[in-house]
Amino acid sequence: MHLNVRAELVFDFAAGSEAIVSVQAAHSRDQTVLSERLLLSPATEMVQDEPDARGERRFRARFEGEACIVYEALVDNGQRITLAPLARKSNWLSLPQDALQYLTPSRYCPSDRFLLFANREFGAIADGGAQVLSVLDWIHDHVDYTPGVSNIETTAERTFVDRAGVCRDFSHLGITLCRALNIPARAVSAYAWQLDPPDFHAVFEVFLDGGWWLVDPTRLAPVEGLVRIGIGRDATDIAFLTTTGPCMSVSQSVNVAEAAGAVAA
Amino acid sequence: MHLNVRAELVFDFAAGSEAIVSVQAAHSRDQTVLSERLLLSPATEMVQDEPDARGERRFRARFEGEACIVYEALVDNGQRITLAPLARKSNWLSLPQDALQYLTPSRYCPSDRFLLFANREFGAIADGGAQVLSVLDWIHDHVDYTPGVSNIETTAERTFVDRAGVCRDFSHLGITLCRALNIPARAVSAYAWQLDPPDFHAVFEVFLDGGWWLVDPTRLAPVEGLVRIGIGRDATDIAFLTTTGPCMSVSQSVNVAEAAGAVAA
Amino acid sequence: MHLNVRAELVFDFAAGSEAIVSVQAAHSRDQTVLSERLLLSPATEMVQDEPDARGERRFRARFEGEACIVYEALVDNGQRITLAPLARKSNWLSLPQDALQYLTPSRYCPSDRFLLFANREFGAIADGGAQVLSVLDWIHDHVDYTPGVSNIETTAERTFVDRAGVCRDFSHLGITLCRALNIPARAVSAYAWQLDPPDFHAVFEVFLDGGWWLVDPTRLAPVEGLVRIGIGRDATDIAFLTTTGPCMSVSQSVNVAEAAGAVAA
Amino acid sequence: MHLNVRAELVFDFAAGSEAIVSVQAAHSRDQTVLSERLLLSPATEMVQDEPDARGERRFRARFEGEACIVYEALVDNGQRITLAPLARKSNWLSLPQDALQYLTPSRYCPSDRFLLFANREFGAIADGGAQVLSVLDWIHDHVDYTPGVSNIETTAERTFVDRAGVCRDFSHLGITLCRALNIPARAVSAYAWQLDPPDFHAVFEVFLDGGWWLVDPTRLAPVEGLVRIGIGRDATDIAFLTTTGPCMSVSQSVNVAEAAGAVAA
Repeated sequence: MHLNVRAELVFDFAAGSEAIVSVQAAHSRDQTVLSERLLLSPATEMVQDEPDARGERRFRARFEGEACIVYEALVDNGQRITLAPLARKSNWLSLPQDALQYLTPSRYCPSDRFLLFANREFGAIADGGAQVLSVLDWIHDHVDYTPGVSNIETTAERTFVDRAGVCRDFSHLGITLCRALNIPARAVSAYAWQLDPPDFHAVFEVFLDGGWWLVDPTRLAPVEGLVRIGIGRDATDIAFLTTTGPCMSVSQSVNVAEAAGAVAA
Repeated sequence: MHLNVRAELVFDFAAGSEAIVSVQAAHSRDQTVLSERLLLSPATEMVQDEPDARGERRFRARFEGEACIVYEALVDNGQRITLAPLARKSNWLSLPQDALQYLTPSRYCPSDRFLLFANREFGAIADGGAQVLSVLDWIHDHVDYTPGVSNIETTAERTFVDRAGVCRDFSHLGITLCRALNIPARAVSAYAWQLDPPDFHAVFEVFLDGGWWLVDPTRLAPVEGLVRIGIGRDATDIAFLTTTGPCMSVSQSVNVAEAAGAVAA
Repeated sequence: MHLNVRAELVFDFAAGSEAIVSVQAAHSRDQTVLSERLLLSPATEMVQDEPDARGERRFRARFEGEACIVYEALVDNGQRITLAPLARKSNWLSLPQDALQYLTPSRYCPSDRFLLFANREFGAIADGGAQVLSVLDWIHDHVDYTPGVSNIETTAERTFVDRAGVCRDFSHLGITLCRALNIPARAVSAYAWQLDPPDFHAVFEVFLDGGWWLVDPTRLAPVEGLVRIGIGRDATDIAFLTTTGPCMSVSQSVNVAEAAGAVAA
Repeated sequence: MHLNVRAELVFDFAAGSEAIVSVQAAHSRDQTVLSERLLLSPATEMVQDEPDARGERRFRARFEGEACIVYEALVDNGQRITLAPLARKSNWLSLPQDALQYLTPSRYCPSDRFLLFANREFGAIADGGAQVLSVLDWIHDHVDYTPGVSNIETTAERTFVDRAGVCRDFSHLGITLCRALNIPARAVSAYAWQLDPPDFHAVFEVFLDGGWWLVDPTRLAPVEGLVRIGIGRDATDIAFLTTTGPCMSVSQSVNVAEAAGAVAA
């Protein structure tokens, strides 16, 4: 798909703040940024980081007082394929080296505590793809999408108890259960076409059959319309804003639209 | 049943320790202590507390170095009735005042976090007795009895994730789910006939149909052979030993046997 | 002091709710309720609980939709004495039996984790009163009174790390440190003269020299002007409202004024 | 220094286990592996990972039943310089991109919760080096090195409360406080000369003045004698063994000795 994405964020920063901002569409194998524009007002000192191994691009800037960040891009996100039930799990020896870090527990995804549950509930399923699809079904059946239940400290363990949360919590629980099944899983922040109300979205991806497959455990947005932004172990790594000091959100709007007449360069 | 119970505990206490000891059979409506003997060696200063409203009896003593506590009793624990499915839940207004404290969360039983799960899983069941029996079935089906997984800090929330634990953990989870269903539930430490290997046991009881019903979520010992010791909100309240300072367990043996020829005084 | 206290609480209750309400001035040795009035509108079925051993009085009622609770009382809270540095700590054997439960950890007050810190920081102080006063000084020096940092789940452990909280958090931390020093400590909810802005207040009390001494770790209200409401192990026990189902606060006002010309009946 | 390091680890693995093993001396700017030998018995299928950006080298292997891993190396760890008080902190815009991930909280190092404490305790200190040295002094003065208090789940938050732990806990607390001061900090596993008893050691390093500085918050081993193995956000990343299934440690020995007559190749 060709998608026009746009984020406009206004924050009120403490004096002398520095921030790491993650709103730019990633440069990845399955996604091409055809054009983009980043506007900071007032103008400020900034550093654009290079895409890292995962394709993630972030910038750093100095902010003070009220500041507005606008990002616009036209992105070709290719043809995202829905996860196939037969997709095979790799054993550890055949995984690519950089997938290994997504096997182990992280702050919001304490997969080591879910070994018994995950194996009892999903262990008998033969193929990796079918296992992940069962995890997604389980989450859909057992967890309510309810804003206000969780907060910035909510872990997958807590969501498993609460049985309610938002996209970030759904993804943390999905990642946790997949890692407990020895499937590398990582958090992805995204622009999401047809997400209603429009906002940044949190989804996740699993490594199966030699590649990463995007899934949305909330079922709120089609995988075909996702544009990756950040990629990491969990919410800590994909926060769209990380700052040295306190800051207040003043307003935030995110838009994603199909670029009807767009053609790839 | 008439039961002979005996505990012999040896600890090594730090100098100047004081301890609260809870090993004596309770004096309760459904249980009569026919004879008993408490022996502390070396002899030491002690205070015997009166049975409180719940019938629990504890003593306090000063200990230093290696000390041995022996308690023996002949107890008539009456005819314990197995929880009936039709036992009715009381609404809050009709509960006795002293049952109210067993409705709310406590350290090891954070029932406030389980409202959604408990109501979704058990909420459609009409009667209180049947609800509790379903909770016991659920625990039996989903939690493994496995020593070594849990420790003194393990809460019901953690056991719900771990899906494994020992009698104390099973009881905490059962209490938590019952409270989440608005059924007063409290922890009980007990001498347990036929428990193998013999040890102190942790069970719980629920308030239904105007009375307290003992249940054993581990299914390791028959309810008919339980002799209550301590009663409280959770493990904190029913610990058999609470001390001012560090102490080491040297040895511990617990025995419970049917008093074949015993006759009530 | 003679004090006029008044609370007016409006909640919106889910259909079929029952609630335990703790807003009535306690009947305790050091406090006399000269006159009082409780008004529920709309009128509803209620049960007035008897003062328990601690003097606490609560009522239970059935609520549905928007409901208003008004409580007014004229209270003589006697002559509260400020904690004396020389007040002596009791050893466990000489404590009254019902003080024992305030020695052990509870959900919000995990005193077992603070043994090392408390003993290192305050252990060298000879007298119990001086120890408690040092705990209060330490809290005053190290913890900021900052609304919004903590929430209903915040424990003393977390406040010790955060170094910020509100009256409830200050009290939990104070209680925790006192219990870690083997001093019985319990939570008290109160009407507080001169508290600004007026609200329910959370303070705590310690058992020294044979009696309970009220202290306010926030230093926001004078001890002389405190009127006890609830008494318990921690916030769970002294909540002014506990309900079977969700409810929303619509408005809340609390007033405490010196009853200038009042005379005891 | 030139150091001979040797680890011999025997585990009993469940059938069909795979493991990631991190015992090899890193290839880093400040450390050269002059010779080395890795021996697995029984022989098994393995994959040697390339040194990653941080120089860390791990291997993956299939294990079953009792298996022995022996690693020996002669390493020149250069001339490690003790952290200078005047070493300057970088602002975020001037940090190298790959240091950014060591600014944010991780599972065992929840630095976001320590902002107030860290800034109040160390915020007034001008230079980064002096700040870190003060953090190390604070840990030394307030935390006891005590085996048995902590376990594999202990976070820096808990160690801050417990005031006791082992090398891993000391490092987690040091990392946490440094990140809370906006200083990148990361966990390092190491062979440590003169550590008594000999074992793997956990230390950490901070990014100041354009480079990483190793520090040992336990003060149990001199920085000059440290040989880096793994490097990561916290203990999860630097575990010497991560497995797909349960395994039992049978024996473990670690040796580090100065290679008196050694000369670089």
